[in-house]
Amino acid sequence: MGNILVINPNSTEAVTRGIDEAMAPLRIPGGPGIECMTLAEGPPGIETQQHVDGVIAPLVKLVRERQGEYAAFVIACYSDPGIFSVREATDKPVLGISECGVLTALTLGQKFGVIAILRKSIPRHLRYLGAMGVMDRLAAELPIELPVTELSNVEKTFGRMLEVGKALRDDHGANVLVMGCAGMARYREPLQDAVGIPVVEPSQAAVGMAIARTRLNW
Amino acid sequence: MGNILVINPNSTEAVTRGIDEAMAPLRIPGGPGIECMTLAEGPPGIETQQHVDGVIAPLVKLVRERQGEYAAFVIACYSDPGIFSVREATDKPVLGISECGVLTALTLGQKFGVIAILRKSIPRHLRYLGAMGVMDRLAAELPIELPVTELSNVEKTFGRMLEVGKALRDDHGANVLVMGCAGMARYREPLQDAVGIPVVEPSQAAVGMAIARTRLNW
Amino acid sequence: MGNILVINPNSTEAVTRGIDEAMAPLRIPGGPGIECMTLAEGPPGIETQQHVDGVIAPLVKLVRERQGEYAAFVIACYSDPGIFSVREATDKPVLGISECGVLTALTLGQKFGVIAILRKSIPRHLRYLGAMGVMDRLAAELPIELPVTELSNVEKTFGRMLEVGKALRDDHGANVLVMGCAGMARYREPLQDAVGIPVVEPSQAAVGMAIARTRLNW
Amino acid sequence: MGNILVINPNSTEAVTRGIDEAMAPLRIPGGPGIECMTLAEGPPGIETQQHVDGVIAPLVKLVRERQGEYAAFVIACYSDPGIFSVREATDKPVLGISECGVLTALTLGQKFGVIAILRKSIPRHLRYLGAMGVMDRLAAELPIELPVTELSNVEKTFGRMLEVGKALRDDHGANVLVMGCAGMARYREPLQDAVGIPVVEPSQAAVGMAIARTRLNW
Amino acid sequence: MGNILVINPNSTEAVTRGIDEAMAPLRIPGGPGIECMTLAEGPPGIETQQHVDGVIAPLVKLVRERQGEYAAFVIACYSDPGIFSVREATDKPVLGISECGVLTALTLGQKFGVIAILRKSIPRHLRYLGAMGVMDRLAAELPIELPVTELSNVEKTFGRMLEVGKALRDDHGANVLVMGCAGMARYREPLQDAVGIPVVEPSQAAVGMAIARTRLNW
Amino acid sequence: MGNILVINPNSTEAVTRGIDEAMAPLRIPGGPGIECMTLAEGPPGIETQQHVDGVIAPLVKLVRERQGEYAAFVIACYSDPGIFSVREATDKPVLGISECGVLTALTLGQKFGVIAILRKSIPRHLRYLGAMGVMDRLAAELPIELPVTELSNVEKTFGRMLEVGKALRDDHGANVLVMGCAGMARYREPLQDAVGIPVVEPSQAAVGMAIARTRLNW
Repeated sequence: MGNILVINPNSTEAVTRGIDEAMAPLRIPGGPGIECMTLAEGPPGIETQQHVDGVIAPLVKLVRERQGEYAAFVIACYSDPGIFSVREATDKPVLGISECGVLTALTLGQKFGVIAILRKSIPRHLRYLGAMGVMDRLAAELPIELPVTELSNVEKTFGRMLEVGKALRDDHGANVLVMGCAGMARYREPLQDAVGIPVVEPSQAAVGMAIARTRLNW
Repeated sequence: MGNILVINPNSTEAVTRGIDEAMAPLRIPGGPGIECMTLAEGPPGIETQQHVDGVIAPLVKLVRERQGEYAAFVIACYSDPGIFSVREATDKPVLGISECGVLTALTLGQKFGVIAILRKSIPRHLRYLGAMGVMDRLAAELPIELPVTELSNVEKTFGRMLEVGKALRDDHGANVLVMGCAGMARYREPLQDAVGIPVVEPSQAAVGMAIARTRLNW
Repeated sequence: MGNILVINPNSTEAVTRGIDEAMAPLRIPGGPGIECMTLAEGPPGIETQQHVDGVIAPLVKLVRERQGEYAAFVIACYSDPGIFSVREATDKPVLGISECGVLTALTLGQKFGVIAILRKSIPRHLRYLGAMGVMDRLAAELPIELPVTELSNVEKTFGRMLEVGKALRDDHGANVLVMGCAGMARYREPLQDAVGIPVVEPSQAAVGMAIARTRLNW
Repeated sequence: MGNILVINPNSTEAVTRGIDEAMAPLRIPGGPGIECMTLAEGPPGIETQQHVDGVIAPLVKLVRERQGEYAAFVIACYSDPGIFSVREATDKPVLGISECGVLTALTLGQKFGVIAILRKSIPRHLRYLGAMGVMDRLAAELPIELPVTELSNVEKTFGRMLEVGKALRDDHGANVLVMGCAGMARYREPLQDAVGIPVVEPSQAAVGMAIARTRLNW
Repeated sequence: MGNILVINPNSTEAVTRGIDEAMAPLRIPGGPGIECMTLAEGPPGIETQQHVDGVIAPLVKLVRERQGEYAAFVIACYSDPGIFSVREATDKPVLGISECGVLTALTLGQKFGVIAILRKSIPRHLRYLGAMGVMDRLAAELPIELPVTELSNVEKTFGRMLEVGKALRDDHGANVLVMGCAGMARYREPLQDAVGIPVVEPSQAAVGMAIARTRLNW
Repeated sequence: MGNILVINPNSTEAVTRGIDEAMAPLRIPGGPGIECMTLAEGPPGIETQQHVDGVIAPLVKLVRERQGEYAAFVIACYSDPGIFSVREATDKPVLGISECGVLTALTLGQKFGVIAILRKSIPRHLRYLGAMGVMDRLAAELPIELPVTELSNVEKTFGRMLEVGKALRDDHGANVLVMGCAGMARYREPLQDAVGIPVVEPSQAAVGMAIARTRLNW
């Protein structure tokens, strides 16, 4: 029974480390190992549709080459880049953090809100939610819209997440929030505490579902 | 870190045993234990809305009394009886096999078909799918409609499941099937092999999601 | 041709009296009598899912025992507790004030807004609207969120209803309002006058539909 | 308190008589009188969009002229011709049999099927159901597709209704049927008996709702 | 190969002139001529459902009489009055500016906002969007709500369009705007420049689609 | 005013020729020229998600390099590969034949059916229709499911298209059909004649919309 490979499709190691740290509680003795890696071919951040589509080929190549070594694959970018191509390339389970984050949120509240990083990503995310057929459950998706240079400012980033989270809760009726990005798991618990409704960290949601899939063999 | 309690809300021990056997692959050495129990107060089978509503009070009582002992609860009946009341009664994660079975199916195909036991349960299930907001993903739900006395006839039951599964695939465009009942995990793999599309056993789907939730503490 | 029994599932007689007074215009000399009763077993108010589910058994018992005496039953709580179980228990028409209130609103405006008492009831109401398949017609549901102790303060209650009604009209585009509670019919007309769009009192809507059903025998 | 005027927008007196007979159970002593009239300007049957649109002007004129005499108006054609124009022309309640028939069906089953007379009317009806926002509740709409000359043949007409009703129930999962036409109330009860699921006659559904509206004054 | 007849169903020549000017870029030397005419029988403005329904008969008559002379017809009022009746009356393509404006917007952004003139038209427009089945793509529709007398005030009108356009973009998440009226093409470009997202002028969208239809012969 | 570049993303010249021939009626003297080219980097046919995603990079590169030469771009594969990436890469209009084919069909019938080549493409197409938000208008999508080697057999291919078209019309209620592939325009007219409902050839629909866009400059 192999490990789960979590692939960060952007090339920023700090994001991969953030994901890796978020995996700690999911590392069960006797359960599947969870390895996190950075896609070397990825851009520093996945911000545009071209970024999303640009990592598909290396993702497919990577999974095809290493499918014998792993029991499941998780694509750890909130746009779920290449998820359907990668699923064609292997018989192993392939999960996307956006899909799993949203589906998990559906078990935690009737209306989910999404905290995006960038406003320009929202139409892309909405197309995906439309394809998922869950638009009736969406409260709204709102961006923190911080320039990348400010994302390393923990206080500012958390401040904006909190503002957006409260707006989703109060103005749009969200009962649960999904973090629309990977690598920010550190904010999950304080955000949940501050907003007072469940917050889903999508990498954890996806790996959580992947663990079961590696055991069930479907 | 406690165990997961899987509650079969009907009083038929054979169903509980079927669920328990289905849990084998999800029992990870260092992971949460998975205990399956029968709700003594339940009817032999949950076939009507009155059956569904009738088990809510004992389910709430049971979970409230034992919430200190367990890390998560799974209600193992495809109507997810009392799921929202039980969630109010405890801060521990409470998952329903219908909700989790359907959400898991959404990761395995664009259109899911449901194999129900009884035709009269379908309107109830459709109300639930409507509340879940996933009607656009439903191919169809069709019943095997076998009298209870024949459900112990493995060959007949499997034969009808196969007929219904093929109809869902060919006439309604299903790419994935959900078994609309608990305690029939034994049929999952042969059915999947025979129909050629993924088949989700909902108790496994729910407990799979519960494992992660016990570790993530949300 | 029997009477209609309107059951207030909470045990607060004042609510039953409010419903009873709202019935005055629907009492047609040669038409069905309209009797309002309080469910003794109910909680003082139905505020949680456990309250909703907790009254199902006594409702079923009541209707089953008295179905020979009445021509139709109306469950007068905006969560329509037990409506599907009660329908199984009798061949007589069983109507819920939430379902009928919303359906009636659909004939009075393209987008309906709901004035809820408590914020925490909204996810439950939205699940029901999702099951009804009418989410596209919903403008929004907003709560007056007054503590129970203040609900007897007529001025304050009306003031909050007015604020919420105007927000539904102006910020969410509602063309018609549904009062998301029973026993507040006294506010219907002044609210309608003050907001300037139709306001549906759901008990009246439900009993209105029940009258026809008692005559049509289906 | 005035009467209800039920307007058959086609000029076929036999249809008006059929509607009038269907009103018998809804004529409550002490309740609003129910008068049925034929729109002289209407075509013999309303089969096309041009027929539908062509009766709007005379309907508006009629209601505007006679609004002082009546407490409510019902437009008794399954395409609800001119319903929104007529509503503008009067403050009195205006109900359409299609809208009310469908809404009533929503209280009787989770999936409704519609029995249309002509296949070519179905797109028009579907546009209306789309505008009503209830497509998720529709099982299907199927036509009996009999030439007008055969509609007077009771046996043939009932035979086709039965075939279509069974197809809606068995192949499309309908739990309740709506008769997609006026003036055929005589078939309602035998059809319901033969198909075994509730059948809604839309003129009765609309007048039933109108009775309450005349009493409630909204 | 004939011309396209664009019919302004209101009787205000200035509106027709505005539409005609907007056609300039679509007049291709070897392509179909584009003629704009005023429906003499129309009201000065189409503001109510009665206005909408009132122009159907003259529109049908006009198109039926002149269908031999033209290759396609465009109904240039944002309520698409009589579109389905006119389609029955001729085999030539008949396009509505509302339908084409919205469909074109779907190619330019994931969420479209509509700038209406009058608040009271919005329910009518929403019914149409519901019939079109595109409610999930609607951000919102908001009115400029200027009295007719002020619509000739270019500065005031543009100012309100800009306010509404920004509200649709910022508060409702619109990525593209549709002008919910004909004859205001002059504002399209400055509005687009000022709001920074694409703005669709629906007459241009409809005639644009009509040009292809005249060439394709379907 | 430049030409329109129609890009066949598969490398089969015969498909490009078929598209090119279908453009004949859209070549208006004085209008934009229409050039059709084959994407050299494409696979012989686009049958899988990997094929779809695999052509995005060369499509983006092509359009970026040549955007100065053309007024609009059309991606002529029914999966609209890379449409959102290509839109990012240029300010010129970029249209997809799937999007435009479906939107055009919405003006021709209330329920559209899609004739796919391969069953395995249907989930991908349904995701796209879900993202478009038009699932309520879909009758069904059915495949002709002929092996590639038989697609050159005109008689067999047309025979299967006809079978599927009739099934969409009769069993699923389609009022209009969309050909779910490029390069088969030759079948459009005979198919429409044989099935008796409009048939949309998506390359023509897209280029038709592109012509207007090149003139309108938005």
